[in-house]
This record gives sequence, C-alpha cells and structure tokens, in this order.
Amino acid sequence: MFGSDNQAPAHPAVLQAMVEANAGQAPSYGADPWSDAARALMATTFGTDDLDIYFVATGGAANGLALSQLVRPWGAVVCAPDAHIIADEGSGPELFTGGARLLPVGAPGILIGPDDLDAVHGAHPASFVHGMQPRAVSLTNLTETGRAWDPAQLARTCARARELGWGVHVDGARFGNAVVASGASPAALSWQAGVDALSFGLTKTGAVMAEAVILFGTARTDPSLPYARKRAGQLISKHRFLAAQFVAMLQDGLWLRLAAQANAVAAELAAVFTAAGIELVFEAPGTARGNEVFARLDARAQAALGDTGVSFYPWLPGGPDCCRFVAGWTSTQDHVRAVARALG
Amino acid sequence: MFGSDNQAPAHPAVLQAMVEANAGQAPSYGADPWSDAARALMATTFGTDDLDIYFVATGGAANGLALSQLVRPWGAVVCAPDAHIIADEGSGPELFTGGARLLPVGAPGILIGPDDLDAVHGAHPASFVHGMQPRAVSLTNLTETGRAWDPAQLARTCARARELGWGVHVDGARFGNAVVASGASPAALSWQAGVDALSFGLTKTGAVMAEAVILFGTARTDPSLPYARKRAGQLISKHRFLAAQFVAMLQDGLWLRLAAQANAVAAELAAVFTAAGIELVFEAPGTARGNEVFARLDARAQAALGDTGVSFYPWLPGGPDCCRFVAGWTSTQDHVRAVARALG
Amino acid sequence: MFGSDNQAPAHPAVLQAMVEANAGQAPSYGADPWSDAARALMATTFGTDDLDIYFVATGGAANGLALSQLVRPWGAVVCAPDAHIIADEGSGPELFTGGARLLPVGAPGILIGPDDLDAVHGAHPASFVHGMQPRAVSLTNLTETGRAWDPAQLARTCARARELGWGVHVDGARFGNAVVASGASPAALSWQAGVDALSFGLTKTGAVMAEAVILFGTARTDPSLPYARKRAGQLISKHRFLAAQFVAMLQDGLWLRLAAQANAVAAELAAVFTAAGIELVFEAPGTARGNEVFARLDARAQAALGDTGVSFYPWLPGGPDCCRFVAGWTSTQDHVRAVARALG
Amino acid sequence: MFGSDNQAPAHPAVLQAMVEANAGQAPSYGADPWSDAARALMATTFGTDDLDIYFVATGGAANGLALSQLVRPWGAVVCAPDAHIIADEGSGPELFTGGARLLPVGAPGILIGPDDLDAVHGAHPASFVHGMQPRAVSLTNLTETGRAWDPAQLARTCARARELGWGVHVDGARFGNAVVASGASPAALSWQAGVDALSFGLTKTGAVMAEAVILFGTARTDPSLPYARKRAGQLISKHRFLAAQFVAMLQDGLWLRLAAQANAVAAELAAVFTAAGIELVFEAPGTARGNEVFARLDARAQAALGDTGVSFYPWLPGGPDCCRFVAGWTSTQDHVRAVARALG
Repeated sequence: MFGSDNQAPAHPAVLQAMVEANAGQAPSYGADPWSDAARALMATTFGTDDLDIYFVATGGAANGLALSQLVRPWGAVVCAPDAHIIADEGSGPELFTGGARLLPVGAPGILIGPDDLDAVHGAHPASFVHGMQPRAVSLTNLTETGRAWDPAQLARTCARARELGWGVHVDGARFGNAVVASGASPAALSWQAGVDALSFGLTKTGAVMAEAVILFGTARTDPSLPYARKRAGQLISKHRFLAAQFVAMLQDGLWLRLAAQANAVAAELAAVFTAAGIELVFEAPGTARGNEVFARLDARAQAALGDTGVSFYPWLPGGPDCCRFVAGWTSTQDHVRAVARALG
Repeated sequence: MFGSDNQAPAHPAVLQAMVEANAGQAPSYGADPWSDAARALMATTFGTDDLDIYFVATGGAANGLALSQLVRPWGAVVCAPDAHIIADEGSGPELFTGGARLLPVGAPGILIGPDDLDAVHGAHPASFVHGMQPRAVSLTNLTETGRAWDPAQLARTCARARELGWGVHVDGARFGNAVVASGASPAALSWQAGVDALSFGLTKTGAVMAEAVILFGTARTDPSLPYARKRAGQLISKHRFLAAQFVAMLQDGLWLRLAAQANAVAAELAAVFTAAGIELVFEAPGTARGNEVFARLDARAQAALGDTGVSFYPWLPGGPDCCRFVAGWTSTQDHVRAVARALG
Repeated sequence: MFGSDNQAPAHPAVLQAMVEANAGQAPSYGADPWSDAARALMATTFGTDDLDIYFVATGGAANGLALSQLVRPWGAVVCAPDAHIIADEGSGPELFTGGARLLPVGAPGILIGPDDLDAVHGAHPASFVHGMQPRAVSLTNLTETGRAWDPAQLARTCARARELGWGVHVDGARFGNAVVASGASPAALSWQAGVDALSFGLTKTGAVMAEAVILFGTARTDPSLPYARKRAGQLISKHRFLAAQFVAMLQDGLWLRLAAQANAVAAELAAVFTAAGIELVFEAPGTARGNEVFARLDARAQAALGDTGVSFYPWLPGGPDCCRFVAGWTSTQDHVRAVARALG
Repeated sequence: MFGSDNQAPAHPAVLQAMVEANAGQAPSYGADPWSDAARALMATTFGTDDLDIYFVATGGAANGLALSQLVRPWGAVVCAPDAHIIADEGSGPELFTGGARLLPVGAPGILIGPDDLDAVHGAHPASFVHGMQPRAVSLTNLTETGRAWDPAQLARTCARARELGWGVHVDGARFGNAVVASGASPAALSWQAGVDALSFGLTKTGAVMAEAVILFGTARTDPSLPYARKRAGQLISKHRFLAAQFVAMLQDGLWLRLAAQANAVAAELAAVFTAAGIELVFEAPGTARGNEVFARLDARAQAALGDTGVSFYPWLPGGPDCCRFVAGWTSTQDHVRAVARALG
C-alpha cells in the first residue's frame, strides 16, 4: 500500500470527467473545449498568462521535451545523481535532446545550490570544446527523496543558473505534494523563482494519465515544442480525454486536497517510524516532507511489514536497509496503523 | 461528422472498462491483470502466441518504434508517398530510428508491390555506401486512401521483402476496418502474410487512446523494444487504463462491430456520391473500401455540404477538389442522408 | 581520366606546404600559425571579416554541420533531387541535424528558384504540426549537373528564403569551378547573395583533404558549430596539416588556376561531343559550364571510350545513356584528344 | 615540449609516403593500392585476417563508430571516469551511438576489472527497463594515466564482459606505446584478449592523421560500419593519403620504434622526478609506464619549468598540483635534461 503512487487508482472525479467528455464529436489534437478549459485553469493555477502548455502521455516525455527546449545536443544538464531523468528513464533524455548529456552533482537528498552550479561551470569552460557544455539544470520538486524545496532556496539556485546563461527545468512529477508541503504557491515554485520549464504531473497525484510541459517567459521564444512533441508521438489525438483530467483535478483544487491527504499520511507514517526508534533517511534541513518517507529497516522489520501486506521498495540511494514508502491519495490512517502494528 | 475518426467519442464500453479498472491498487507499467488479459486477447485475436505486444500512447509512436525495430540509422524505409509516417508525423520516424530515411515509391492509392521493392533495391545497392540502404517497407492497411489490402497481394509484397532481407511494417491505424473490408482474419493480414511489425490501433475505431506495436516471429529476436519504448516516454505508468480499453474492444469482437458500422456507412456514402454523378477517387481495383470515401466535389457542392454541417477535409494527394470523408463508429444513415440532401 | 575529380592527385604545392608545415612543435586543434594564416586568407578571399571558418575532413561533414546550424530536428531542408546531400551521403544529414528531413524539389539540373520555395512553404504551413517544417534550402554550386549559378539568380533565391525565414546553405564542393565559370567573386556567390553557410571544398580542386564550413553574418550568432564539429569527430588534432593546404591553395590564387584548367578542359570536351553529334545533357540556360560534361552516349560509344582507357560514370539522373565526365586539374588536351579519337 | 603528442610534427617518412602516393589517378574511397597495402599490413601486424578495418579522420570518430557497433541507443558503455570518450569528445559518443550513455566506474588510473563489470551489471538488471542497459565496456590502452595494460589482466576483464554478453572496445590512441611498454603483441592486446573493436591511432605516434577502427571476429557480423562511417562524414575521398601513412608507419615497424623512443624518454623523465623527490602519480601496480608521466609539482617547480620553456598540462584527475608530461617521438634526452636543470 506504500509501493508507489502510480499503483493507486485514479480519483473517481477524474474518470467521471473523462466519461462526461465522451460526448459527441470534438476537434482532435487539442482544439477542443476541454483543452481550452484545462489551459485556462493552468494559467489560473500558476497565476500568469505568460506560459505555454503541452499535454503529454508520461512524465518521462515531459522531462525529455522540456530538456530539449533548454539544451542542444552538445549541451549538458546538471542534475541530482538520483534524479528520475538519470535513474529511471533509460536514455530518454539523450533521445529527446539529440544526445545531450546529464551531469550528476552532489548527493541524493542534497538540494542543488548555486555553488554546485559554479563548480560544474568552472570545470566545463565554454572555450574547451572537447568538454561538455552545461547549459541547464534540472531540479526535482518533490525531490526523489521526498522533500519539498523552500521557494527562496529554489530562487537562489535559479538565479545563479540565469547568471550562467543556463535554463532551469523542474521535474514536478509530485508537484502538488511540493506545493502542499512547502506552503508556497505554484507560481512561487515555478516562474516566480526563475523556472523556465516545468514537468507538471498529476498522474501520481490521482489522475489516469495527466502530464504536461509548461514553458514560462523567455523559454517560450523558441518555437520547437509543438513540433518536438508531435514527432515524439506525444500529441494525443483524442486530446479531450487528457484535458478533462486536468480540468477535474485543477478546477476546485482537487489536486491539492489529494496531495494534502498523501502528505498527511506520510507525516503520520514518519511519526510511527520515529516512535519505533527507526531512523529516517533524507531528512534534509530547510526542506519539508512530501508524501514519501525513507526509513532504515532491518531485515526483521522488513519481513514483518511484508507479512502484513505493506508494500514498499528498497531504496539503494539511501544506503543499506533504506526503504521507500510512498503515500498516495488513497492512503489512510488505517494503513499507517498497519505499519505500526507490524513494527510493534 | 465525416471529418476524422479521431474526432469521434469513444464507445461507452471502453470508458466503462476504464472505470471498472479503477479499483484498488494495481502494479504499474503493465504488470497488472488487465494488461495480462489484453495480451491474451491479442494472442487470440491474431491466432498465435508468437508475438510481443507493446502498448503505447499514439499511432505515431507505434509506427516509429516499429520502424526502429526494423532498420538501423543508416537504413531506409520504403513507403507510399502519402503514408502517415511520411506526411503526418513530422520527422518522427527519423527520431525513433536514429536518423533512417523514408523512401517514397509509387503514387497515393497504388499498393506497393514486389516490383516497387525491386526497383528501390536495384537503385540502392548495398555496395554503394554513399547511397541509402533500404531495409524495410512500411505498408498501410487501410491505406491512406481508405482501401483494404487483399491478403494474397499483401503476402506477395511481404514475400519479396523477405527475399530482399527487408522487414515489413504495417501501419494499422484502421486495422479493424481493413479486417472487415477484406474479410480476411487479423492473422491473414499480419504474420501469415509475412508482416514483422504491426501498429495496431483501436483509437480511431472507438477507444480513448489504445495503440500498440505487435512484433511477430523473427522480429521478436531483437531485444530492443522494451527499452526503446521506455526511453521514448511511451511506457504508461497506470498501464491498466490502456489495457482495459483493449480488453473492452477485443473481448467480444466490439472492435470489428464498430469497424463494420463505419465501413457500412462509408459504403452508403459512396453510393450517394455515385448516384449524384460525383467522381470517387482512389477506387483501386483489387482492394475493398474501408471507412473512408474520397470524392471530387466542386466548390458549390463543398459549400452546400458545409452549410448543412457536414464536415470533411480537402485531400491534396487526390488532386483538385478531392475531399475525404471518414465514417466512424458513431456515423449513421442519418449522416448519409444529410449528405444526400445537401447534394440533391 | 574523367571519372571523378577526387581520383586525381593533389597539386604538388599542396603536399609541399604540408611538408613545410611539418616543422617542430605546434599547437594542436587550430591554434597554430598555419591555421591563423588560412583563416586570414579565407577572409581575404571572401572579402569580409564577418565569417567563421571550421575546417573538417570531408565535404559530407561540412554539409551536415552546416545544415545542423540552420535547421532543428523537426525542420526540413529543401534541395535538388540529385543533390549530394540527398544522393551521396547516406543518412548523414539526418545524423548531423538530429533527424531533420530533406525535401527534394524540382528536377536535376533545374536551379531552385523563389517559386520552388514558395510551393514548399505553402504545402507545409507552420500551423500544421503534423507536417514537416522547412527552414532552410540547400543549393549546390556547381550544381550536381556541373553548372554554375548566375549570382543574380542565386541572390533571388536567397532573398526569398530570407523572406520566408529560412537559412541558405551552399554545397561548394566545386566552388572554385563555380567562381571561374560564373566570373563572379567568392563574395558574390556567398554572403553578398545572402548565403548563410557555405561548404567550401578544395579537395576536388586539387588538395589532399581540405574542406571547411564557412558561416556568414547572422548565421554566426548560434554558438553551436565548434561543439558540433568536435562531437562529430571532425576537429582535426594536427590541424596545421589541414590549414597548410588551404594556405597553399588560396595564397596566390592556385585554387582558381586549377579550377580554370579543369573548366577549360571540360569546355573542350563538350565541343568534341557536339562536333561528334552527341547530345549534351543539363545544358541549362542562364548557367555556365564548370568542370563537368554530361553527354548521351550509346553503348558503342561508351565501349569505344572504355577501350581507350577513358573513364567516366553513367549518370542516372540524366536519363538513359547519360554519362558524366569530370575534368580535374590534371586533365589536359591530350585527354580530350583521346576522347575525340575514340569517338572519331 | 611535453605538452601533448599531437603537437609534435609527423615523422618525415610519413610525409614522404604521402608525397609518393601523390602519383597519378587512383580510385577514391579506399579502392586504391595503398589502401590494400595498408589493410594487408594491418592484418600482418595483428596476426589475423579475421578483422575489418575502417580508416577515419580522428580518434574521436574511431571511438564513436566503434561504440556504435557495440551498443544500441538504449545501451550503456562502462568506462573509466577519465576516459577520453567521457572527458574529451563532447557528446560525441552520444552522437555516434544514437544516444547511448557512458557509465563511469572506478577511479582514474585504476584498471577496470571483472568486479567493476559485475557491479554495474548487478545494478542495471535487464528486467528493469527504466534503468540503463550496459552492453559494452570501453578500456583505454595506454590508459589516460599513461599505463599499459598487462595482457592477462586485459583478458580477464574481456572474459567477464563476454560472459555478460557485453562488447569490448579499446581506445588505442596510444596503442603503440602500450605494445612497447607491455611487451605484448598487438594480437595479445586485442583479439587474443577478447577485444571486439579497437580504435587504432597512429597520429599521436607520429603520423599526420591516421586513425582506424578495427573490428575483430564476431564483431564483424554486424554490417553497420561501412554505412555508419559514410554518414558520419568519415569516409575520406582521397583515401590513399590516409592509407599511405599507415603503410609508412607499419611496414618496417616504424610505429613501434617511435613509440619506444617516446616511452624511453618518459622513463628518463620519471627518473628525474624521482631523483628530485617529486611524487609520481598514477604509478599503478601491474601496469607499465608508456609515454606519459604524471608528477605532483608545486607552484615554484611549475614556474621553473615554464621559465625554461618546458610545456606540460595541469591534470585535474590526478589531484592538486598534478601535472602531465607527454613524450613524443621527437622527445629527446636534451628535453629531459632541461627538466632536470629547471628542477635542480
């Protein structure tokens, strides 16, 4: 029950919206009313009209397309060593960018800061054509370690990236959890902080399949993305069914309520671990917990949990015995109590 | 109402299946029971277990991934000049294949035959490294001109391809219409004829988003596709929602009933045009009509149809005044009568 | 003896320059004095300092890198159907551009004009994301049919390209022959006409291996090429040996004298064919002949030439019996007389 | 004078061979007698006819093409963190392989062993499609730290790679130095050890521009390389001038005499450093020194060397104050004495 948020069902309202969108003929490829409504709700959600929105099928595609907007094939993208783009998408970033390279910096759970960017920049001078050319940084919020960026810290990293002439991408596969955990607005965690391109995912939050690339401000000047999305087979024909999901999730804040539920369960789960004397991993200062908890469980505890049907994954970036627990919108206090009982 | 089959809604049974699949936790990425059921139904539908199935989000992705299985970046794919892969997917084939080239042969509506393959083969000897290296042919069934291949003719082209050492891909975005129109089985139109890779689409037929690559026989020996699909952002996380659509469409032959309805309306529409003295285009001998009708309509007739709300598209490959009418599963005799009235 | 200009030896002065450059240590990768001298001579030759020069190993690499500067992977390049980039470089353009597509227009030997660009532009609207996006045109001068562009005609095509927002590439594998044949200056045939990127080749003219991409004016603003050249394995380490060849060829006009010799022999050869009643092919009005002659020779004439050791190639784009004869800097009147005798 | 071996001139015999090859017409693209002779000498040098040889312009191209033979775009190549392919070729490996990824293991100067392969293999199971798929290992011999592999150690690593189903590439930009230093034959350091693809470079050894990919044994079964080389713009037209260099270097063992001279000077240089109490870096047990010396020099010593015109490079992978000295075929005892005097 804590295996992954993409093992959860979708919220019934999402499927209901798809059923309701299934009415009569509608223009394909995004020219339908649901897509218009979804884009309008996006603008409202992010508090700006200075954005372009591209719905796609997966978070990996959103990440790849976003990166292709920020770097050329001779460029490099700085990221955390446990970022989804480097650990979980095969060589997708290479495919979408035409062969750019990912340059991992720092350590899992450590937020990438201005100093990290400076170090990479210093080691890869533009005049050394033999070496890689970093031109963007990709951050994850929530991080892969389940932490929400403080918006001020995010803005500092973005500011340095801008000074270096780099683009900033945020992988927001769990963006709703980050918004809830940080208490910051979607705007504060994106364009106001200096983010150029956001992978905005609602699938994990509670949709069936609802991912998007959002470009902000100057990142919109490059005209690539409509064509890049199409050639990647990511322009969905019956587009209304994607759009309807965004409408259902965004129109009355459902996405944030679902994220809040998941975050709350994760907090209770963390408390259970702490009470049981179990070490929590990745508890980074200056960050808030989202919907993931990482705990160091010995073999006996892991077995006990397994026996009671609690699912979770070993998490190598956290070291020996580190286990990842992900709460979703369907997670409840009952699930937490099951963990407590198993550990008791 | 005859604009495109992807402007139609999905059949209610498809959405109902998605709603039913939305029950509790399920493994992601295709390890769920719906995916197992869908794959089993595919095997039954095609009458063989010697196949691999990869669900994806769009027909363009299915085509690109299938081609990537058949040619290397230095290879070329022979196709019709109006094939979807060359006319409607941007440079998607180039993206998925790593830069292979499409080589159009023949003319719109003319089926590619053994002689066409021989001509390309002769013009591109393997010893001439400066030239392209054709290694596959991509056929479309239904063709872009709405015609269903006769299985014997398909087998002849496939046989020559095999003799040349080429792979055979079939773009089956309207495969159901081809099955119904030709009266041949899915097996006869795929592996029995010598097809290596089939893009099997049910979206146009009546699903929300249900596309797949199917590899047959020896085409399965290359282990690429699971990895290629993943890196292209085409491995859907909540996979059960794709799979449930296939189950709904395949389990009791719904896909063929829907295709039959579309084909029947198209036939009636063609009869109306003929009765009105309007020239039909692309009526290729040795082929059967699917769910598309191409007619040469003067400006007055086009305007008359437009006035009554009949939608259709001008179709440049058919020459001046050629218009495409696509019937979908929601098309009815009422729609045909509306056309008849407008032309009357 | 008329097979191809790359079967000829290099001019002795070129090898002498390489031998002389082989003195002591020198910085690698283009930071040596010979490279400085070569770049200075290029600027003088083209009459401008507003250019960037990138030496590479082959004309194919020069073409590919130049195109990569002008189009993105979703873009398309208009070219003649017999252009070297489409007929003789495998899928090299696709490799270098990350998957852009070549769109052939017109016919072999017909210069691409503003109307051709308009037709392609009209057929590929920017709003139709499903279709290709032409963003550049690639011209060849000499054309593959051995003709030199009139600079005014070149300027007209370039002007329309600029109006459409397209880049202009010229494949100048036989640029010296074009300069001599047209009587126009290198400047008039490049930046003054509106050319953005020139593949400037001296290998066929009489060097060992001397090819370069030259970017002019606004095409220089994209910072890609130094990095793109390096990653393509086209930045030569002992760069002085490339540069010395350019110095030898450019410093006192050797390249133009060699081109003039080849052109003169070609003219005499054409006269011999005409005198013998043999049809010349590709004699396009408004163009001048360079160092290539295309003649329609029956089997008997071809055999007679072969018997006397005259080499040439059949040339399919010219139709049945069309044969290509290329004169090089080592071609002489004796060779022409040998042809005359064989035909006599 | 110890900056880099590609700052050295070519051996006069190499240029003399090019001058002699400059005689009369010759078939282009490798069908000339010099190319035949070069390939025959290669076979003799490596003691086998079971090899394919592809001459190219640069070591980066040789590496990229070799890797493209061994991995698909979804694959990964294990290499040292200071390997030339990861540190000095931009994103060239990504370009040539269509987007495969490099996976660095170990540390600079530590030879990659079977355990390293096992660790990567264990961390990247084939069943986890989200992760990279290692399918090849790229070794460097000489390593980037100037050490020659012991053939037995090389064979052990290759054997494990073969057991894992991986290909083995060796970057032999300084292969001659490795042969001399190890005392092993070219065969023992390539196909006999289990190497599939060798980048065989003679440019640094003393040629103008002489690099090749050699495929051995089963690696020859994939028919890609002729086409891949062509499309990369790496098939040189006046091929005899590349081939003549190989002939000059290989025909009487010149390449090994030049490598021996460079190695000998490096040994003397190392002795000078040791005598001066200067720490040598990367002195790996079980390896022999080639033509490179890495020494930890304080600022004063570096300045003293600079004052006397001794060139060298700081070498970050070796830590603070690590400096690289490369001896070439033109290096002499006088140069060593100059270093000794400066340090004295």
